[in-house]
Amino acid sequence: MHTADPFLFQLFLIFVWAKLFGEIFEQLRLPAVLGEILAGVLIGPYGARLVVPTDAIYAIAGIGAIFLLFTVGLETQPKDLISVGRTSLYVALAGIGMPVLFGFGYMMLRHHPAHEAMFVAAAMAATSVGITARVLGDMQVLQTFAARIVLGAAVFDDVLGMILLSVVVGIVSSAGLAWAQLLITAVEAVGFALIMMFYAPRVVRRMEPGLERMSTQDAPLIIALAICLGLSYAAVKIGMAAIIGAFFAGLAFAEYSPRWNLRSRVFSINEFLAPYFFFSMGARLNMGVFDCKLIVSALVVSLLAILSKLVGCGLPVLRSGWRTAVKVGVGMVPRGEVGLIVALVGLQMNIVSESAYAVVILMTAVTTLVAPPIMKIVFRDEVVAEPALAGRRTTAM
Amino acid sequence: MHTADPFLFQLFLIFVWAKLFGEIFEQLRLPAVLGEILAGVLIGPYGARLVVPTDAIYAIAGIGAIFLLFTVGLETQPKDLISVGRTSLYVALAGIGMPVLFGFGYMMLRHHPAHEAMFVAAAMAATSVGITARVLGDMQVLQTFAARIVLGAAVFDDVLGMILLSVVVGIVSSAGLAWAQLLITAVEAVGFALIMMFYAPRVVRRMEPGLERMSTQDAPLIIALAICLGLSYAAVKIGMAAIIGAFFAGLAFAEYSPRWNLRSRVFSINEFLAPYFFFSMGARLNMGVFDCKLIVSALVVSLLAILSKLVGCGLPVLRSGWRTAVKVGVGMVPRGEVGLIVALVGLQMNIVSESAYAVVILMTAVTTLVAPPIMKIVFRDEVVAEPALAGRRTTAM
Repeated sequence: MHTADPFLFQLFLIFVWAKLFGEIFEQLRLPAVLGEILAGVLIGPYGARLVVPTDAIYAIAGIGAIFLLFTVGLETQPKDLISVGRTSLYVALAGIGMPVLFGFGYMMLRHHPAHEAMFVAAAMAATSVGITARVLGDMQVLQTFAARIVLGAAVFDDVLGMILLSVVVGIVSSAGLAWAQLLITAVEAVGFALIMMFYAPRVVRRMEPGLERMSTQDAPLIIALAICLGLSYAAVKIGMAAIIGAFFAGLAFAEYSPRWNLRSRVFSINEFLAPYFFFSMGARLNMGVFDCKLIVSALVVSLLAILSKLVGCGLPVLRSGWRTAVKVGVGMVPRGEVGLIVALVGLQMNIVSESAYAVVILMTAVTTLVAPPIMKIVFRDEVVAEPALAGRRTTAM
Repeated sequence: MHTADPFLFQLFLIFVWAKLFGEIFEQLRLPAVLGEILAGVLIGPYGARLVVPTDAIYAIAGIGAIFLLFTVGLETQPKDLISVGRTSLYVALAGIGMPVLFGFGYMMLRHHPAHEAMFVAAAMAATSVGITARVLGDMQVLQTFAARIVLGAAVFDDVLGMILLSVVVGIVSSAGLAWAQLLITAVEAVGFALIMMFYAPRVVRRMEPGLERMSTQDAPLIIALAICLGLSYAAVKIGMAAIIGAFFAGLAFAEYSPRWNLRSRVFSINEFLAPYFFFSMGARLNMGVFDCKLIVSALVVSLLAILSKLVGCGLPVLRSGWRTAVKVGVGMVPRGEVGLIVALVGLQMNIVSESAYAVVILMTAVTTLVAPPIMKIVFRDEVVAEPALAGRRTTAM
């Protein structure tokens, strides 16, 4: 046991502050994640300096990020990818491609280095469906065509976002922007994704009888954790980010997640570790970089992030009418933890500057704050006047 | 995310090695904890040096110890303390007092410093009932009088062990062995224990409606974790060990643990963190200190640890016959995580030497290895020849 006061003190204080702000944000119907980040901004090293996280806290935050992406993977069932159909795939693809194009273009126009532009563009790509799912769930319109397209596209979205991050990290780690290298990295990343989605679950299935013979209680959880940690390390070893390995480890166990109760168990670990991650995100946000130029930049990037998803995700469903296109587009607007982690990876690799990091955090905040009220307006016509059911809340971050 | 290789590498390797050795030990019907410690001895800094744990790993091990004791507290229901009756209380009291007397006396005779002698004595005090419960469960004799006395006494045992540790840490932190100081610390520790057992649950009960109103999912888990971390920090702040605070936090929530499903959730966190703690215990065991003298010393301490529990726990039930006395005595012999943590606290306070630390680890190993076969012999006459039921395993560490 570590009797050093500062560590234990920070462990306690960060947990309480992060959860407190998360709860306040939830009560205001705002995303809890933003509250936890704000807690880090306020009492972190660039704020009140009440907590200057030690290396051990950052290490725990790193494990938090790994478990966060492991959970995202666990919730992405490969068989869902097949069942949601082509429309969702197209929505996801265009919804990833468009923000990358817009983001990269704008950052290059503003004379940012190409590597930094790529990271910001990648951070703009991934939709976080938690907020959308909750708003649509509250309105009881989850069964509508547009909602099903959004939820389906979100499954592809995470996988595509991780492939994109692999490619970006791969390019950045190599010498220059060689097209051959880009192609190889892309093929590697896609191959890795396909293996983990379609071959790894079979390996897991074959492990099943062995797991039941093991004496250790919770054998499936232990094996899953070991593989999550192993793939995270392997990903770093071959020049990817640890979270990519964690995400793909989650994919491999997604099919057995409900049966082995993995999700709720890993979620308990997340409840403890994730606040340290989000708090650290906020603690790394240098308030000193904020000036007029940065705020304009952040607003433009936010606007591009919103427009690119509207257009990118709306276009593939345009033949179902422009109303549906707008619904799908708005539903895909909120960004979340995946984008934040991408920015953090860039910051830690010294590729993303403190100001570009601040832009990504603000963009995430703007997209998650703007989307819900608009969703309530565009989905209004789908609300059926039916006998009031007990308002059941769907899961969200 | 922490992309530094060594940390992620150790995170993965320690988890896999510890769990692997734990599983091998389980298959051999030996306690998994010993396997996890052995893993640390073998590949740790004093062994193959494959893993020299970084500060971050030791920090995580420290959190592991906190959650371990939090779980022990969660499983100690204050209302059980009232229902198990006086016999169990006497068994627990004498079962704590006798090893402390024997251990302290022997260590003083061997010219160890008084502070070190106290720590070793305290480490000899606490029974770990996990192994006993499993052996008796396998034999299907959990409902016998002797078994019920043992399981009841184990509930008091942990509380008394923690009070003892508080007193020892209090004495050691103060200037000398002043009797007034001893009395004050003892009263404080007992008072703390009584408040957490009988008043704190009422506070938790009053919090209940508020918790259900909270938006954050898993509100009870979050509040419990916050209070666990807060009391751990408070304990260190007032000169106790962090684990004492964690244990008492567990006591406060014990009553609501089944209803809020706290045990299984905290257990998931434990599954991840505990291996780092036990591995670190082993990694701190300096193989260089082993010589003839130390081994003799360890064997004597082990023998005293066994005899003192036999006598201490047997005496209060002697009027039920000497066979029952032996059964209760043998059932209380195995020591476990609480004793190990006490030794570690002493090592980290630079009061327990590396050799005394080694003695405690060996004593724990000997008591847990010796007890089960003897239990099988002494409880043989209680086994009823009944139609073979599906062999159900009871919980154990």
